Amino acid sequence: MTSTLITNIAELVTNDPEADDLLGAISDAALVVEGARVAWVGRAADAPATDERLDVGGRAVLPGFVDSHSHLVFAGDRAQEFAARMGGKSYAAGGIRTTVAATRAATDEQLTAHVARLVQEMRRQGTTTVEIKSGYGLTTKDEARSLAVARQFTEETTFLGAHVVPADTDPAAYVELVTGAMLEAAAPYAKWIDVFCERGAFDDDQARTILAAGRQHGLRPRLHANQLGPGPGVRLAAELGLTAVDHCTFLEHADVVALRDSGTIATLLPGVEFSTRQPYPDARALLDAGVGVAIASDCNPGSSFTSSLPLCVALAVREMGMTPAEAVHAATAMGARALGRDDIGALMPGKRADLMVLDAPSHVHLAYRPGVPLVQSVWLGGRPQM
Amino acid sequence: MTSTLITNIAELVTNDPEADDLLGAISDAALVVEGARVAWVGRAADAPATDERLDVGGRAVLPGFVDSHSHLVFAGDRAQEFAARMGGKSYAAGGIRTTVAATRAATDEQLTAHVARLVQEMRRQGTTTVEIKSGYGLTTKDEARSLAVARQFTEETTFLGAHVVPADTDPAAYVELVTGAMLEAAAPYAKWIDVFCERGAFDDDQARTILAAGRQHGLRPRLHANQLGPGPGVRLAAELGLTAVDHCTFLEHADVVALRDSGTIATLLPGVEFSTRQPYPDARALLDAGVGVAIASDCNPGSSFTSSLPLCVALAVREMGMTPAEAVHAATAMGARALGRDDIGALMPGKRADLMVLDAPSHVHLAYRPGVPLVQSVWLGGRPQM
Repeated sequence: MTSTLITNIAELVTNDPEADDLLGAISDAALVVEGARVAWVGRAADAPATDERLDVGGRAVLPGFVDSHSHLVFAGDRAQEFAARMGGKSYAAGGIRTTVAATRAATDEQLTAHVARLVQEMRRQGTTTVEIKSGYGLTTKDEARSLAVARQFTEETTFLGAHVVPADTDPAAYVELVTGAMLEAAAPYAKWIDVFCERGAFDDDQARTILAAGRQHGLRPRLHANQLGPGPGVRLAAELGLTAVDHCTFLEHADVVALRDSGTIATLLPGVEFSTRQPYPDARALLDAGVGVAIASDCNPGSSFTSSLPLCVALAVREMGMTPAEAVHAATAMGARALGRDDIGALMPGKRADLMVLDAPSHVHLAYRPGVPLVQSVWLGGRPQM
Repeated sequence: MTSTLITNIAELVTNDPEADDLLGAISDAALVVEGARVAWVGRAADAPATDERLDVGGRAVLPGFVDSHSHLVFAGDRAQEFAARMGGKSYAAGGIRTTVAATRAATDEQLTAHVARLVQEMRRQGTTTVEIKSGYGLTTKDEARSLAVARQFTEETTFLGAHVVPADTDPAAYVELVTGAMLEAAAPYAKWIDVFCERGAFDDDQARTILAAGRQHGLRPRLHANQLGPGPGVRLAAELGLTAVDHCTFLEHADVVALRDSGTIATLLPGVEFSTRQPYPDARALLDAGVGVAIASDCNPGSSFTSSLPLCVALAVREMGMTPAEAVHAATAMGARALGRDDIGALMPGKRADLMVLDAPSHVHLAYRPGVPLVQSVWLGGRPQM
């Protein structure tokens, strides 16, 4: 197995939980990759002998971003809806149905090509692991094929038949379908099951039923909750002991206490607030209360058509009261925790060598230089991708 | 002279002022480049015969961004000051002095390499013309060499000796220097003269004196004004009939009326408000009052270290009430007007063939897909750059 030394790293973000600082940052650092894994990290001066050697010229090296929430399987776009919203029209979940129609009409090949393009776009921006949901099919056939497409790109696939009730469909009958034939067809391709628990989508009783059915099929439960207004979703997530609950834009004190007590991670999606002109979730209050916070892109054509975790980091700092270190940690280590993964999100011996080299000397530049494409190269499982 | 047809353009933004819509957009379009200029634009079906042909695959083609305000000649960075500010410390113009010390200590070669890198970074994001100011030298020698460096990259160079009064310097004596020996040394390399007219920098009387001296040396006057609070700068710009006045964050009604009456363009710099957590300027109110609005990056290491006009367009839409079309127009046609240029900022016969191809079907995607590196290629004077 070839060993490669990556050296002349101005700042190496390890996310070592034993370190004194949140990021376990090492300056004047080096890292050894062996096969798909990290074999060694430390000061460049102490580096062991290796077969190969790469000098990154005083740049920063970070764990790849772990984007724990995206909806990449769809067709069409909603640029006109976006432009209308920026002109004053408010966001409503019903726009999802526009994408459902386009997605059903697309071939598997079209959907696959579209996902491939978005995954590639993410990779160029430092994302090395992405979770991908279904949810624009909403028929047994279209949900199953959406997940089969997603599964070609990631093991982090999520069945979201419960995204919205399709037009002209009885909600109770639809929940029966989602927990019956649709779940049956989707489960072989999915690791997770998710419900959009929100006024206009599914209520907490429906969410409870759907997640329980998913669990019986071996799927791990997740929730979309409290995106458009206060509601019972976040407390349900805490009650069920979910690993993570996503959005958390409108929280009451009891929600924050419930998250703290359950240890459920709040996954915040600032691209949504950017693109819908909603108020941003209060990451500072969550962190100060002792709640774990992850950030993800929610890349989707309706409410957040960004694939950029660098932008989400910058927004988390500008708008949500996070420090640059907290935001980077939330998009890497905490993204991994939100997916229940301990092999990614950190650069320490034994972890997967999924990393990015920034064209900048420190992680701070991701927020300090918003919008600038700073990711110079990305390594996936020990191999440079670009 | 070789003619090249660029065709299969889903949307061609011409910025034709005679068109019915603001962007003079043509769908299913084509464009002919001859030498450095645009020779023809129209529907693809009507395109003339040419020597060469490039199919851009249903993408959008826009005029290159004209970034009419940047400070690229400097050394060092202020990432730690940025991180401290995000932790609650407020922005103060005095931080400029940190960069002045680093810039004076840098060699000409170091400054040139640094500007080259930032210009290249801008180009990859669609900027085809950039204005570059001095202002981190603040000695006769360092201002002149800053401008000599800038002049290697653009004809739009601006003498900003009046950026801030250097430490331990008498303000009156400094104004005398700026209008005397420093101006003398700087003028051969500069097209414009600029003053930071703000509490803590230069007042309106000083600004008037400095701009008048610059005019006598053949330089065209510009102003930074009303960035950190209300003040006399914007009204002074209107009174002097300046082409543009930059920042315009804190405006009173009388300022807006003065701008409308004088026809002075308000150049808004949303990267600054993003990076300093100030309130954004109200572009909507300016447009509704009939004031011309341009947007630019203000790329500098203190208050806005972004080189990304795509981000500025997205911020203008999210935060300043502009439509995507208005924001794109402001970053192209209006940027050109703010520099007094009629050869750029539009794609019409006779204009320079400075353009970008977006990896998207329309200009809306620049705001709809924030943070995503959408610029697929850039043409400068009729030649593809990447």
